[in-house]
Amino acid sequence: MSGGARREMNLGVFVETTGRHLASWRHQQVNPLAPLDFGHYRRVMEIAERGLFDLFFLADGLAIRDRSAERLGRGPKAHFEPLTLLSALSMASRHIGLIATASTTFNQPFHIARKFASLDFLSGGRAGWNIVTSSSDAEAENFGADPIPAARERYRRAAEFVEVVRGLWDSWDDDAIVADPASGVYFRPDGLHALNHRGEFFAVRGPLNIARPPQGHPLLVQAGSSVAGMALGASVGEVIYTAQTTLADARSFYRQLKEQAQAAGRSPDAMRILPGLFPVVGRTRDEAREKFDYLQSLIHPDVGLAQLEHHLGGVDLSGYPLDGPLPELPQAGDNPTSRIALLQHVARRDNLTIRDLYLQVAIARGHPVLIGTATDIADMMTAWFQEGGADGFNIMPGWLPGGLADFVDLVVPELQRRGVFRRRYQGATTRDIMGLARPAGRYAAPVNHRLTAGE
Amino acid sequence: MSGGARREMNLGVFVETTGRHLASWRHQQVNPLAPLDFGHYRRVMEIAERGLFDLFFLADGLAIRDRSAERLGRGPKAHFEPLTLLSALSMASRHIGLIATASTTFNQPFHIARKFASLDFLSGGRAGWNIVTSSSDAEAENFGADPIPAARERYRRAAEFVEVVRGLWDSWDDDAIVADPASGVYFRPDGLHALNHRGEFFAVRGPLNIARPPQGHPLLVQAGSSVAGMALGASVGEVIYTAQTTLADARSFYRQLKEQAQAAGRSPDAMRILPGLFPVVGRTRDEAREKFDYLQSLIHPDVGLAQLEHHLGGVDLSGYPLDGPLPELPQAGDNPTSRIALLQHVARRDNLTIRDLYLQVAIARGHPVLIGTATDIADMMTAWFQEGGADGFNIMPGWLPGGLADFVDLVVPELQRRGVFRRRYQGATTRDIMGLARPAGRYAAPVNHRLTAGE
Repeated sequence: MSGGARREMNLGVFVETTGRHLASWRHQQVNPLAPLDFGHYRRVMEIAERGLFDLFFLADGLAIRDRSAERLGRGPKAHFEPLTLLSALSMASRHIGLIATASTTFNQPFHIARKFASLDFLSGGRAGWNIVTSSSDAEAENFGADPIPAARERYRRAAEFVEVVRGLWDSWDDDAIVADPASGVYFRPDGLHALNHRGEFFAVRGPLNIARPPQGHPLLVQAGSSVAGMALGASVGEVIYTAQTTLADARSFYRQLKEQAQAAGRSPDAMRILPGLFPVVGRTRDEAREKFDYLQSLIHPDVGLAQLEHHLGGVDLSGYPLDGPLPELPQAGDNPTSRIALLQHVARRDNLTIRDLYLQVAIARGHPVLIGTATDIADMMTAWFQEGGADGFNIMPGWLPGGLADFVDLVVPELQRRGVFRRRYQGATTRDIMGLARPAGRYAAPVNHRLTAGE
Repeated sequence: MSGGARREMNLGVFVETTGRHLASWRHQQVNPLAPLDFGHYRRVMEIAERGLFDLFFLADGLAIRDRSAERLGRGPKAHFEPLTLLSALSMASRHIGLIATASTTFNQPFHIARKFASLDFLSGGRAGWNIVTSSSDAEAENFGADPIPAARERYRRAAEFVEVVRGLWDSWDDDAIVADPASGVYFRPDGLHALNHRGEFFAVRGPLNIARPPQGHPLLVQAGSSVAGMALGASVGEVIYTAQTTLADARSFYRQLKEQAQAAGRSPDAMRILPGLFPVVGRTRDEAREKFDYLQSLIHPDVGLAQLEHHLGGVDLSGYPLDGPLPELPQAGDNPTSRIALLQHVARRDNLTIRDLYLQVAIARGHPVLIGTATDIADMMTAWFQEGGADGFNIMPGWLPGGLADFVDLVVPELQRRGVFRRRYQGATTRDIMGLARPAGRYAAPVNHRLTAGE
């Protein structure tokens, strides 16, 4: 990325059971039992690696968050836990980064540091942690009697959590383990460090009982467009996921976050901003439109409305006509999330009915939907990439694996022809492949400049 | 196991990085970097499956428990986290049960229920959970400012923890998911159940966001010879690990625990008791003795003493002569563990010096060491198996993979010749293979006896 090297996009794939579209499991090319079929994820992984993707991303939640789902039974709500699934998938892949979501609100830093370090070793340096704070009472109810903490408390805890995890990853110097059978010395004791952290939320002595990961630190991934989310992303995020519907919005978010990162003392190039993108690709525009219309035809109205209510923070819209406007909604306590604000903004801007909005939410849930040929989609991606809106994209296939295969077969070659995407993987770890620096251990001796200056 | 079927042993392998012996990493046939080398565990797994083992067991701790290790640097203290490692290993195995240790003191039931269910799906029904309560302040210090809770509190928490986990595993009826694209019905809402648990330690609503595991419940594994440990094992343990040094002790433990299980309303055959066994196998007794002497020669005295101090609960033995007797030790607060009492008992019974004891602890840490030919070892195993001391054994190879390969190549065929061990795997899941019943879901409709009676 530095010097004269050509800047290239980073691409991630957002793997959500049968696909991003709410009715994807009903798609005729989709195996409806895919959510608990390992072979399904292996096939998606293989297609993503064929497409030279940087990242394979599993979102996660710690509950069936949408209570209406329990009542309706209309979609897959049972699926793998991400860290176990990605550990297995690490065996079926060689190049792609493996990003698992884990909550800072309902975990302990020692477990998280250890599991991601373990995945980094299993995968040869391809682990990444998508840091989330969780936001639903449904999740809180699986971890005690208290409601979900307020956003500002969750983000304070998240910041301290990440600080502890990074400290634990540095427990062992990179060169601490010598493993010399002859002398009987396994590691240099002065290369092992207790953390002795005591903070507002955590007291953690350390050291971690796994060595420093191949990447030094597994990749730190973050999403969230709220003020608190952006502050966390600016301070620690190396990959940022975001939902932006126009290039203007994307540029504004991009500029603001990179400035915040610089203000925090970081290089803007140490953070890659990847807006989500739901592509529906056809060999012609008509074919793409047919694929889209077919997907939309699979949405049951009950499901669409329940999903919209859920994404608006649990409001009840049953008293409003489907073909009327979205009503003014009360603020959701002290927990307004950026996604809710974005949805209301889009509804007002585009004068959408409730039905319009649930159809839109159903397919992409706040992310732009691009229906067209490879040229159409590459045009948009290239524009965002070259005009300050994105460092790459988190591709959200509507159905899996078909929607991803379309993208890989049709759009990736077009991006390569334009010189904005790689033609082969270069580097072993995800940091190498993405051109993100490997962090030095915090206890590492300073470089001896006299020696490196050529003596 | 029922009817006229011949009773056969169950065999597990205890996989402890480079082996059970404290100096195993210095063994000339061992890769000293094996603790973080996935290929090492894959080779061990392949040998265990070649030997038709039932279980592949990973112990675990949530700290570098032996503080002297931090000071001495003389052994591998950095290794994989078990659930991530076993998820990856599930891809490299087809028959063997995958047992991961997880602590009830420093986890939440929702996470544990979910991860083990996920591993059960990944492996096609081969997951098992070794339930431990943790016992060291070193672990407590990685999870807050409080010291380790007293044993009775930890075991109360463990019992409630297991109850919640089993409830969460039953969240979905086995037949709840219909996944019918035509009707748009993914699951029957009346087949999904919130748990609504509120107890002394946990409040967990549920339901779990993963379907009922292939085994119904992953296998419940337990160890511990303390009163509280035995009570927990008797009430929920399906596989019991234990350290017994004589057949008389083993028979007493076996009889007592099976009686306790029966008193709790369980079938004694629903619980398999597998004492640990450290075999050193040779083609002749001399060869076995040479292998043993070589291992012992690798122990550094500092390491042996530190390990003994650790296993005695952190006492300081530096003021006592190595070739004198073990002094009388103070009770370790309200946290005496069964392992400490066993060690003191053995030292007194056999009139051991401190050096004798650390040499013994170093190799097997409370478990019997058998040095001999395949016939010698099969004789002991068959006697314990047929005379009420064991349902099988947890084999603890001194060094890996060599010590396991010796056992598989030499002892397994001898056990097969005697008709006390299988000649091939029969069944798909670990429960099938071990002849342990698959638990019915707690909400399953009662069997309609009129229909099953032949009408």
